Amino acid sequence: MFVIITYDVSESRVNKVRKVLKKYLIWTQNSVFEGVITEAKLYKCLSEVNKIMDKREDSLYIYKVENPQNLSKDVLGICKNPEDMFL
Amino acid sequence: MFVIITYDVSESRVNKVRKVLKKYLIWTQNSVFEGVITEAKLYKCLSEVNKIMDKREDSLYIYKVENPQNLSKDVLGICKNPEDMFL
Repeated sequence: MFVIITYDVSESRVNKVRKVLKKYLIWTQNSVFEGVITEAKLYKCLSEVNKIMDKREDSLYIYKVENPQNLSKDVLGICKNPEDMFL
Repeated sequence: MFVIITYDVSESRVNKVRKVLKKYLIWTQNSVFEGVITEAKLYKCLSEVNKIMDKREDSLYIYKVENPQNLSKDVLGICKNPEDMFL
């Protein structure tokens, strides 16, 4: 399964959330992770994130595509690699 | 077709980019728009965005799923509606 995870998380927690997501997926844009992952690993990932997030303030969207062939991706502008930036 | 658009755009241009995207799609998270759109309208939308972006600094990802039934979405935390916020 291919997933895209986007998030709006308070500054005080965002680095911790990124560190968890980075263990399972690829960081492709400031607020976006993506990658191929099993349902079991995604569940584990989200359980970890769940412990860090404040669910009254933070927001995390998980878009799942069962068959990655049903998904295509285009890029306008630069193809960022935030992994070079920090963490 | 269902599209998810995520962006990293400089503060000086981000409101203009959002105003264009808002004409075609639904703003669901700070840096995310999504919705059902035709290929022709998406092309028109991206042409408009293209004129605003600085392609050496800004980044816009377009994830396309031909059949929305191949996509599912889960939310952790709050389901934001940035349309209430500003613009």
